[in-house]
Amino acid sequence: MDSRIASRMGASTPSTITVRGHDLCTELIGRIDLGAMAWLELTGRLPTEAQSRLVNAVLVTLVEHGMTPMAMVARLTYLGAPESLQAAVAAGLCGMGTTFAGTTEGAARLLADAVRGAPADAQPADIAARLVPQLLEARKPIPGIGHPVHKPIDPRTPALFQVARETGYHGRYIALMEAIAAEAERRTGKSLPVNATGAIGAIACELGLDWRICRGLSVIARAVGLVGHLNEETQQPIARALWEHAEATVAANLAAGDGADA
Amino acid sequence: MDSRIASRMGASTPSTITVRGHDLCTELIGRIDLGAMAWLELTGRLPTEAQSRLVNAVLVTLVEHGMTPMAMVARLTYLGAPESLQAAVAAGLCGMGTTFAGTTEGAARLLADAVRGAPADAQPADIAARLVPQLLEARKPIPGIGHPVHKPIDPRTPALFQVARETGYHGRYIALMEAIAAEAERRTGKSLPVNATGAIGAIACELGLDWRICRGLSVIARAVGLVGHLNEETQQPIARALWEHAEATVAANLAAGDGADA
Amino acid sequence: MDSRIASRMGASTPSTITVRGHDLCTELIGRIDLGAMAWLELTGRLPTEAQSRLVNAVLVTLVEHGMTPMAMVARLTYLGAPESLQAAVAAGLCGMGTTFAGTTEGAARLLADAVRGAPADAQPADIAARLVPQLLEARKPIPGIGHPVHKPIDPRTPALFQVARETGYHGRYIALMEAIAAEAERRTGKSLPVNATGAIGAIACELGLDWRICRGLSVIARAVGLVGHLNEETQQPIARALWEHAEATVAANLAAGDGADA
Amino acid sequence: MDSRIASRMGASTPSTITVRGHDLCTELIGRIDLGAMAWLELTGRLPTEAQSRLVNAVLVTLVEHGMTPMAMVARLTYLGAPESLQAAVAAGLCGMGTTFAGTTEGAARLLADAVRGAPADAQPADIAARLVPQLLEARKPIPGIGHPVHKPIDPRTPALFQVARETGYHGRYIALMEAIAAEAERRTGKSLPVNATGAIGAIACELGLDWRICRGLSVIARAVGLVGHLNEETQQPIARALWEHAEATVAANLAAGDGADA
Repeated sequence: MDSRIASRMGASTPSTITVRGHDLCTELIGRIDLGAMAWLELTGRLPTEAQSRLVNAVLVTLVEHGMTPMAMVARLTYLGAPESLQAAVAAGLCGMGTTFAGTTEGAARLLADAVRGAPADAQPADIAARLVPQLLEARKPIPGIGHPVHKPIDPRTPALFQVARETGYHGRYIALMEAIAAEAERRTGKSLPVNATGAIGAIACELGLDWRICRGLSVIARAVGLVGHLNEETQQPIARALWEHAEATVAANLAAGDGADA
Repeated sequence: MDSRIASRMGASTPSTITVRGHDLCTELIGRIDLGAMAWLELTGRLPTEAQSRLVNAVLVTLVEHGMTPMAMVARLTYLGAPESLQAAVAAGLCGMGTTFAGTTEGAARLLADAVRGAPADAQPADIAARLVPQLLEARKPIPGIGHPVHKPIDPRTPALFQVARETGYHGRYIALMEAIAAEAERRTGKSLPVNATGAIGAIACELGLDWRICRGLSVIARAVGLVGHLNEETQQPIARALWEHAEATVAANLAAGDGADA
Repeated sequence: MDSRIASRMGASTPSTITVRGHDLCTELIGRIDLGAMAWLELTGRLPTEAQSRLVNAVLVTLVEHGMTPMAMVARLTYLGAPESLQAAVAAGLCGMGTTFAGTTEGAARLLADAVRGAPADAQPADIAARLVPQLLEARKPIPGIGHPVHKPIDPRTPALFQVARETGYHGRYIALMEAIAAEAERRTGKSLPVNATGAIGAIACELGLDWRICRGLSVIARAVGLVGHLNEETQQPIARALWEHAEATVAANLAAGDGADA
Repeated sequence: MDSRIASRMGASTPSTITVRGHDLCTELIGRIDLGAMAWLELTGRLPTEAQSRLVNAVLVTLVEHGMTPMAMVARLTYLGAPESLQAAVAAGLCGMGTTFAGTTEGAARLLADAVRGAPADAQPADIAARLVPQLLEARKPIPGIGHPVHKPIDPRTPALFQVARETGYHGRYIALMEAIAAEAERRTGKSLPVNATGAIGAIACELGLDWRICRGLSVIARAVGLVGHLNEETQQPIARALWEHAEATVAANLAAGDGADA
């Protein structure tokens, strides 16, 4: 028996199913919601009411953002393989990489590292004043601030921070995220408010979640959204029209001599 | 402008995000849970309290079932590509096909077709008496009944049907599912109680969901469970031990001359 | 030791790698091409020159077909996760389901079943005369015949059958596929020539491959094509323009009141 | 017409299919092998005989390596969704990330950057003498050298370099890769010969391929190998036994109190 192959996620007997130590049928079904179940999966404990409200708020935020590349991918895949709805969702999720979801992870990691590396009594503004110049010098975008569309502020941020405040989780990570945004704005002269991924990265830290699993929150939420898009696709399909547009545009550009350089 | 490329899932302006007609930041974040959000995505309407409780119960049921092939796949994929947590979840979801999840869909379709094809005042037992012989004759398993492990009953079924009763959704689809199980048991002499996928297929019909999207409920729920497994994998990895066991066993069998027939 | 966990695909020692009984470094690298390697993987034997030429012809046929939904999916996924080229290919392959690739499998299965069920001396035309009416009655498309674009014939079919003839593999399965097309045309009055998937299904049967693995030929070939598209995407990206078009069209339709019915 | 949505990969008319400017039916089918087709897809040109032999050698090298995590993933996914062979291959490919395939890319990038940054007449040994100390100081593994199993040398490397020599592609990138290995061995006192991914990274540079697409070579090759494993899985399935072993081991460890820490 290989002692390394161990897990405490779940177990079954003929008459019971246990999830993280809780009886599925008598303690969970009908008693907790899906966000609370996610919390149980991730932490091994049932959430308090405050934790449940906050983690549900975070997950709800990330479900739907209109006709994204991921939604297009799910729909185009469903066109080719309607027998495999699960593979269409999977294909969509494959695109949840560094371009779109990475910044939640990046923001949480940045905050966790900065707080761990600072004295216990350090002020957020002081940490930010030391951190931001280094980040700007690296000439990479600072995760969690600024947004190409949502200006001057990302409306999700105050909504999320309000729930954090109401549930008692508006702590030093959120304060540091806000201080980083303020310091970056001061130094660059640009509008760089905390965006939704920055807000969620900060809240994940407040909740004690590891930055390594932050992308998992996005994945859970977006799986819901992609199933929503596929449900609409069964009722009003658009994938074939997307394909025809792409194929016709490529053909027209090729005819006009503007194809990609071979 | 191609009028076929249309969607009502979501829309954005610089200061607002709308999901199915509801303002994300003022109406949804902090106000509804993830199961209710899934309902909004699938139906375009916010759920009643009863609908929310029932759809959450269904989703909670499907999140976690221990060390399944899908959980193994997610963990083994994460071993190879730890930078792509989303692809590890996606790989796991790809296995949610006919073997494991298809029966929810099959049960919902069976019930929806049977009820649509029967007179409005037909009794469940009478529909079942006509239907089951046809199903048995086709020599394929009847979706939604029997379970290899959970005997004599699947404990999830009474838990789910109890929530359906409490929320006012214990109607004719559930009655028909139970009648089919009873008729199949009577005719085959085997123990064939309604299993969890049968219960969920019936509840999906009660809730007015299309059988085409039933697999989506499993996908949403299992995405939560796979993120849970990957979180545990970051803390106590087992993928390498699974690999080493497989490789060593193949090598030992090959040495013993018991390899697969080339 | 579990004797069921056995495989003869490959094995390693510190100084050797063996693939299906052949030493990779001394017998395969630099000596055979990728199509021959695929044959070795699938059959456990190195191909004859004829088999190698024919299986390469089949694979070459399926690599590239322009801006398909699968190519769009790979490119859109790469936009979101450029660090995971493998996941972009994987997402693209997920769409190779019943709509596009299923007919190769279907054609091979149809031919294999029909030949197995017929007397050894049955003439293709006679088998087709008995088979086609049953297929038409089922009111499902007959796999392997007809094409929405390539008319009056699919140009790939004569090219493939010519290679089959030159390599000595133009046998009874190809004859039956042609007889089925002729009989279907006679009975329906429509132009229904053997298409590329029908040609490939027939050739797979001639080569002794199982219909269950036919889709695998498409998957191998299209993986090549998707890597080609992603290479072009790194040089001339189109994914963002595809996204912007979709998002803008959805927004315009929504503004015009022509969104999908919520 | 959006001029950005352009591609030169392929085009169709009712009577022709063109791939990268070549008529599929008259110039490619039956005339070139799958490796040559991959070259055409990646470069837009048919390969010379030398290029074809070398690119096929590289691809053949990467097809099969026994019971890897990727092969296990493909088989476990097929168990759950046997109707979606393509999704099983896709799931397997998702694991071809930084742990296993990243080093080809890394080696190619390292060599390309080093050669571009060095004077035209710089000697490989001199470049290596300047480069290796920096790489060692970064305390990350140097891509392309050393192997946990294949010792003292990776047998694929001399086989590949021999084909490179015979085809006239044993140039400065290969020389630099060898010089890096020698310098690293000299400085660390460890055995760090060029491994297969280092050899392939160097050959990719010799062939003029971009490091960004190197992972694509692995993906193409491994798609072949995964289809091979799935073909064997249809004949001698092992996925269920892998699952049963994992589930039973987890249960036994849980009973013994050695589960993962919840």
